[in-house]
Amino acid sequence: MTEELTPPRRRFLALGASLAGAVVACRKAPAPSESGAHMRGYGERSPHEKSVRVVRELTKSLGTGSSRTPLGELHGIITPSALHFERHHSGVPALDPAAHRLLVDGLVERPLTFSLDDLKRFPSASRVCFIECGGNSIGEPGANLPDVQKSHGLLSCSEWTGVPLSIVLKEAGLKPEATWMIAEGADAGRMSRSIPVSKALDDAFLAYAQNGEALRPEQGYPLRLLLPGWEGNTNVKWLHRLQLVDQPAMSAKETANYTDLMPDGKAQQFTFVMEARSVITRPSGGQKLAGPGFHEITGLAWSGYGKIARVEVSTDAGQTWADAELQAPVLSKAAVRFRYPWRWDGKETVIACRCTDETGYLQPTRDEFIAVRGLNSGYHYNGIKPWRVNADGTVTHA
Amino acid sequence: MTEELTPPRRRFLALGASLAGAVVACRKAPAPSESGAHMRGYGERSPHEKSVRVVRELTKSLGTGSSRTPLGELHGIITPSALHFERHHSGVPALDPAAHRLLVDGLVERPLTFSLDDLKRFPSASRVCFIECGGNSIGEPGANLPDVQKSHGLLSCSEWTGVPLSIVLKEAGLKPEATWMIAEGADAGRMSRSIPVSKALDDAFLAYAQNGEALRPEQGYPLRLLLPGWEGNTNVKWLHRLQLVDQPAMSAKETANYTDLMPDGKAQQFTFVMEARSVITRPSGGQKLAGPGFHEITGLAWSGYGKIARVEVSTDAGQTWADAELQAPVLSKAAVRFRYPWRWDGKETVIACRCTDETGYLQPTRDEFIAVRGLNSGYHYNGIKPWRVNADGTVTHA
Repeated sequence: MTEELTPPRRRFLALGASLAGAVVACRKAPAPSESGAHMRGYGERSPHEKSVRVVRELTKSLGTGSSRTPLGELHGIITPSALHFERHHSGVPALDPAAHRLLVDGLVERPLTFSLDDLKRFPSASRVCFIECGGNSIGEPGANLPDVQKSHGLLSCSEWTGVPLSIVLKEAGLKPEATWMIAEGADAGRMSRSIPVSKALDDAFLAYAQNGEALRPEQGYPLRLLLPGWEGNTNVKWLHRLQLVDQPAMSAKETANYTDLMPDGKAQQFTFVMEARSVITRPSGGQKLAGPGFHEITGLAWSGYGKIARVEVSTDAGQTWADAELQAPVLSKAAVRFRYPWRWDGKETVIACRCTDETGYLQPTRDEFIAVRGLNSGYHYNGIKPWRVNADGTVTHA
Repeated sequence: MTEELTPPRRRFLALGASLAGAVVACRKAPAPSESGAHMRGYGERSPHEKSVRVVRELTKSLGTGSSRTPLGELHGIITPSALHFERHHSGVPALDPAAHRLLVDGLVERPLTFSLDDLKRFPSASRVCFIECGGNSIGEPGANLPDVQKSHGLLSCSEWTGVPLSIVLKEAGLKPEATWMIAEGADAGRMSRSIPVSKALDDAFLAYAQNGEALRPEQGYPLRLLLPGWEGNTNVKWLHRLQLVDQPAMSAKETANYTDLMPDGKAQQFTFVMEARSVITRPSGGQKLAGPGFHEITGLAWSGYGKIARVEVSTDAGQTWADAELQAPVLSKAAVRFRYPWRWDGKETVIACRCTDETGYLQPTRDEFIAVRGLNSGYHYNGIKPWRVNADGTVTHA
């Protein structure tokens, strides 16, 4: 807690020019509104709310492309399911949950097929965790993406519920030579990823629910693989097959894509765990500060390796850093909301944040990232993102 | 963890009659589906999903009545905003957030009016907490409500974000004699409740967001009072006025309603804090077990006094009780998901749960509740809810 959060004066805000006009003494409450429409079984948001995912659809296949969560307009750590990011390689299949089956085969003692009802008979587990696309910020090392939706919007966080995968694999019985698992989706392209069995037996689960209700279609309805902390597309959507094998499949999405082409021309494969990173979501690119005075700096931090231990904020272009407050609960492999009180003097400056996770890993600067990884590939970029606050209050990439 | 969750055998489920037919060895994966429609900026659920709030609308005023969360169909602890329960006394006003104002007046040094933008300038806070209507289970002590949506569906849990009310009240400056605060909504009936200033300065906040995005219209858009752990309608929706006073207003909703008429004919007022309670949501009334064998018993527990410390489950009509597993995170004044592994022998029995909160308070039986409170009034009922599992697998109230 800083001085700003426990003011010695009674009044918290300085009530500068921007606020003095708006906060007006008034003894007359506004007139009440008329009651609206009939009550609904399933609610919708207000027509005044316009936040949407920015959709970038590729023309070669219907429903194929990406859409990004508008992080700059959201609050807390839960992403509304309607605004969870998407990255589809072959559209969104319209699956009938009553007909959907999961096949577990390959190096198992008993090949098994499960209906959704079968899977719901097993013990369940819920977990709040983030999913981040390996291609989040893919343009960032070489360019400067102008707002947080474009730069970090392939990151979302939900409460997921499903069956621990270890239980299902025990049911089928793993053969000793089963060291990898090919997870395949029921999309038109059968997107698949090879997953080490060690992760499958650790904290993986088969998710059938998100934020309390069934998965949304674009999140893999009716079943997706959930690998907490791991690269987005390993969390295979519309999951219909788990094939146990003794080596990875070397599928398109683990060879042609989602690999890190290093400066020496060799590509690193299977960068599964998403490293710690953080970003300021407010104020961020495209937003405008109403004027000098108090502004809360807030954003999200996350790490595929566990809990976020610390987030620091700089308001002087990285010369000095101060600890931000982490909003409880701080959960492993989940987004964490941080807040930092700031009194802006109205002069141009650069703000930024950086995080440290419980392993002690400190989020790198852009230069530190490029020094190691070069500019051949932008997958798995996690550098510090600075925002320039201009004298007119506009915020742009620094 | 019990024997069922760490089986010595490889196969978890007994694979009784119900499951043996469904889990069929199969080496051929189903054919992939065609890709569906264009990607959407704001998503919707699958057309196969039909869970809705049961709406009970009163005819005297459009949009007035209650709707109940289908707890038996939900997962985890987050209630989807579209399924959060409702209880409206004068409909749902259609408010324009740009025109909405909050007036803070009465026994303050500076009467102030705040726009939404003004309130968003203050430091923010997020918190996962439940809201439960004081009239949840109002028919239960004297009758036996047949399913968990009817019996407990006026309970929901969200991640709320807003401004700590203490900061806003300091901005206005409380006069020493300000001991109560009348919170008034902008609905047609100006529903109001009197709140002790001690709660306002404790953990109260002015919420403008729910589950990541703006409040839903039926949850008070664009602003509601949030009093963690307190009776639902003290969390005044469409909040447009906080009047500081030196005594409660004795409004209709704290005299004619939401009071507890005791056996001696006197009514207790201002039962603010919702006592600890729990309920099994699966299996629960109206559901049907597929057959003997393993079934997970799961449900929710919550307490307005803090954290849930323990949930116990009985599968023999209350003769014996065993600890259920509490799903992390266990948060103060939030719903907690519990799970208990059960192997049903196919015979008729009664299952139930009971919880203890961190104050040591144990949820009472129905008889214990009635012994104290009588049957004059069903507000604030928190008795144990038993479910009868019949030999044919159907579940009914016990």
